[in-house]
Amino acid sequence: MTPSHFFEPPYPVVRLSPKAEARAIRHGFPWVYAGELVMDRRTSNLLPGALAVLEDAERRPMGVVTVNPQSKIVARMLDADPGAVIDEGWIASRLSRALAHREALFDQPFYRLVHAEADGLPGVIVDRMGDLAVVQPNAAWSEAMIGPLVEALMRVTGVSRVVKNGSGRARGLEGLPEEIVMARGAAPEGPVPVPMNGAIYLADVLGGQKTGLFYDQRPNHAFGARLARGGRMLDVFSHVGGFGLAGLAHGAEHATCVDASAAALALARGGAEAMGMGERLSTRQGDAFDAMEQLAAEGARFDVVVCDPPAFAPSKNALDAGLRAYERVAKLAAPLVREGGYLGLCSCSHAADLSKFRAASARGIGRAGRRGQIVWTGYAGPDHPTLPHLAESGYLKTLFFRL
Amino acid sequence: MTPSHFFEPPYPVVRLSPKAEARAIRHGFPWVYAGELVMDRRTSNLLPGALAVLEDAERRPMGVVTVNPQSKIVARMLDADPGAVIDEGWIASRLSRALAHREALFDQPFYRLVHAEADGLPGVIVDRMGDLAVVQPNAAWSEAMIGPLVEALMRVTGVSRVVKNGSGRARGLEGLPEEIVMARGAAPEGPVPVPMNGAIYLADVLGGQKTGLFYDQRPNHAFGARLARGGRMLDVFSHVGGFGLAGLAHGAEHATCVDASAAALALARGGAEAMGMGERLSTRQGDAFDAMEQLAAEGARFDVVVCDPPAFAPSKNALDAGLRAYERVAKLAAPLVREGGYLGLCSCSHAADLSKFRAASARGIGRAGRRGQIVWTGYAGPDHPTLPHLAESGYLKTLFFRL
Repeated sequence: MTPSHFFEPPYPVVRLSPKAEARAIRHGFPWVYAGELVMDRRTSNLLPGALAVLEDAERRPMGVVTVNPQSKIVARMLDADPGAVIDEGWIASRLSRALAHREALFDQPFYRLVHAEADGLPGVIVDRMGDLAVVQPNAAWSEAMIGPLVEALMRVTGVSRVVKNGSGRARGLEGLPEEIVMARGAAPEGPVPVPMNGAIYLADVLGGQKTGLFYDQRPNHAFGARLARGGRMLDVFSHVGGFGLAGLAHGAEHATCVDASAAALALARGGAEAMGMGERLSTRQGDAFDAMEQLAAEGARFDVVVCDPPAFAPSKNALDAGLRAYERVAKLAAPLVREGGYLGLCSCSHAADLSKFRAASARGIGRAGRRGQIVWTGYAGPDHPTLPHLAESGYLKTLFFRL
Repeated sequence: MTPSHFFEPPYPVVRLSPKAEARAIRHGFPWVYAGELVMDRRTSNLLPGALAVLEDAERRPMGVVTVNPQSKIVARMLDADPGAVIDEGWIASRLSRALAHREALFDQPFYRLVHAEADGLPGVIVDRMGDLAVVQPNAAWSEAMIGPLVEALMRVTGVSRVVKNGSGRARGLEGLPEEIVMARGAAPEGPVPVPMNGAIYLADVLGGQKTGLFYDQRPNHAFGARLARGGRMLDVFSHVGGFGLAGLAHGAEHATCVDASAAALALARGGAEAMGMGERLSTRQGDAFDAMEQLAAEGARFDVVVCDPPAFAPSKNALDAGLRAYERVAKLAAPLVREGGYLGLCSCSHAADLSKFRAASARGIGRAGRRGQIVWTGYAGPDHPTLPHLAESGYLKTLFFRL
């Protein structure tokens, strides 16, 4: 347990090495990489997440950062004001600013409320589902300050229940343990219903993937759903029914969801039933590649097919294999689309940029003997802002092809 | 005048040189560049727009192309079937396919119906406004076949009036003359009302820019409008009021349109009046850069500011100057945005790719002493499809920053 006084000012000073990109940081780049900080003994001994005042090589203060000597990102900017005090009030002001943006965007309180660096809270993710919020404190500072973070969150938004979701790769990189617990309020008695794009999704906030629901595909769900009106939709790697249920809500005659997880499909079914459309949904549990081959063998054809697989290229090392996997998805999915129908292909891989992902997708479509025009290029929704300096790495890409 | 029998089969044969990218063309790349075609005497003498059967260097037929020996794009693929006959029926089938896509997308018949290569009709643009269509035959073959094209268009869509808009840079490159005339039906008595995103735009189809209206910004208009609810909007380089009128339709309290063209502003005013919202629109005629400086001097602040300038970087040669101009737009616009408000910046320059345009925009915002998160990256709407092989050059980019 980190002693709480460690996070009280005055903060120790850490210093950029002369070769560091001080200018970029001054212009808003939020990270200091390992090697860019002078690692004297005191800095090396800082506890993971410690707050510090960052100075440039000429000892001019640049702002308050959180330091993690063990991480590749050795410091993350919290506030360009070197006199800032990082406490519950400070967190609340960041949350208020984030909330104002979401309230401008959405009529109902279901959205990603905090998207880490871009919302001024490095490494912190908060998804809101009405009266409940799920916090992912993925950076050490936010783990140490989880108490004030949860307090501020309840005060600013009025939510009464907060889940702390301490799972996932990012926490491992920061050396944080796994745990999913209620930080405040009673555990929900079952999955939480989430309205989005006219559909109802069920989120398993205590047992599911990430925060139980993916808000990032909202605009892409909406686009795919619009194409499915009156038609038949196939949603491969469906999770809780992202594209399929949106399709039903927009008048698709029928949707088929395919996923390896029986639990996710049960939630998809529950969502369709909550929408009063249970009889228009089929589910198919199993490996998505196998399922697509099987559907092709059965001669199945759909008006809209969407494939939203897990990240096949999570890192640069996995890029080539990942692109081959995306190509294979496209090649197996294309034959399932009727002539003149639509194929939606998604990638949530950082390493596969838009241009590479598009090329792999087009190659797969070509290898299936089909041709397509691109009619939609979509990214994560506007409750997932990005800093211009990090925008190149926008992870989510969704393409719709007309075949 | 091109003799019409020139466009009747059997078509002459043209042949790829051995160094040409035959594989790319076989995989759907739609163009043959000058130098990739064997320019024997017969090929050199083909009239601009002539139809021909393309063969590869091994004399295997690849499809029917249209040839223009004077153009940098010396041949454009019309049909991968070498036996295709390019006549009114062929055009009608392309139009039917294009129409089915738009009817899947839109409830009302107001859209770009044909977006050139991606809709299988190289160099042809058709914008539909209800009962009227505006055709831009920007490639020589379509100029020569304007008769069958107009016939097919009326038959497939049921429109009764067709404007032929023969203006713009693309026609110049193909050596075609300027003219804007009614190809069929009576000239409209005034500007044509076009409903889009809940707003009403007035399109001057016989005298305006391009086809009188830009459908390409539809999803970006919709996003900006959503941010403007209850607020004040500034629409710089407004043309007929693209962002401003969409903002009013979505509940903006007030919109100010700035444009150099008094005629465009009069159409914006007419649109607002047709919406019954004339009193919520201000217009300001003049140079946009001057107007932004003036507004800043007056201390004006808006909730949403959008700048949708003409292409500052229409070609690679103009790239550096163009990026400086985009940076300057951002620098002048940022101070007009209230703290926590939104800045929309658009580029319709082929040469400035997303990454360069984003960097120039962020630089301009930084030079104004502001910082922004990117909340939206949008392209041309889905009635502007692209071929995967040409997608890199997607011209329209719209970014929304929160400042």
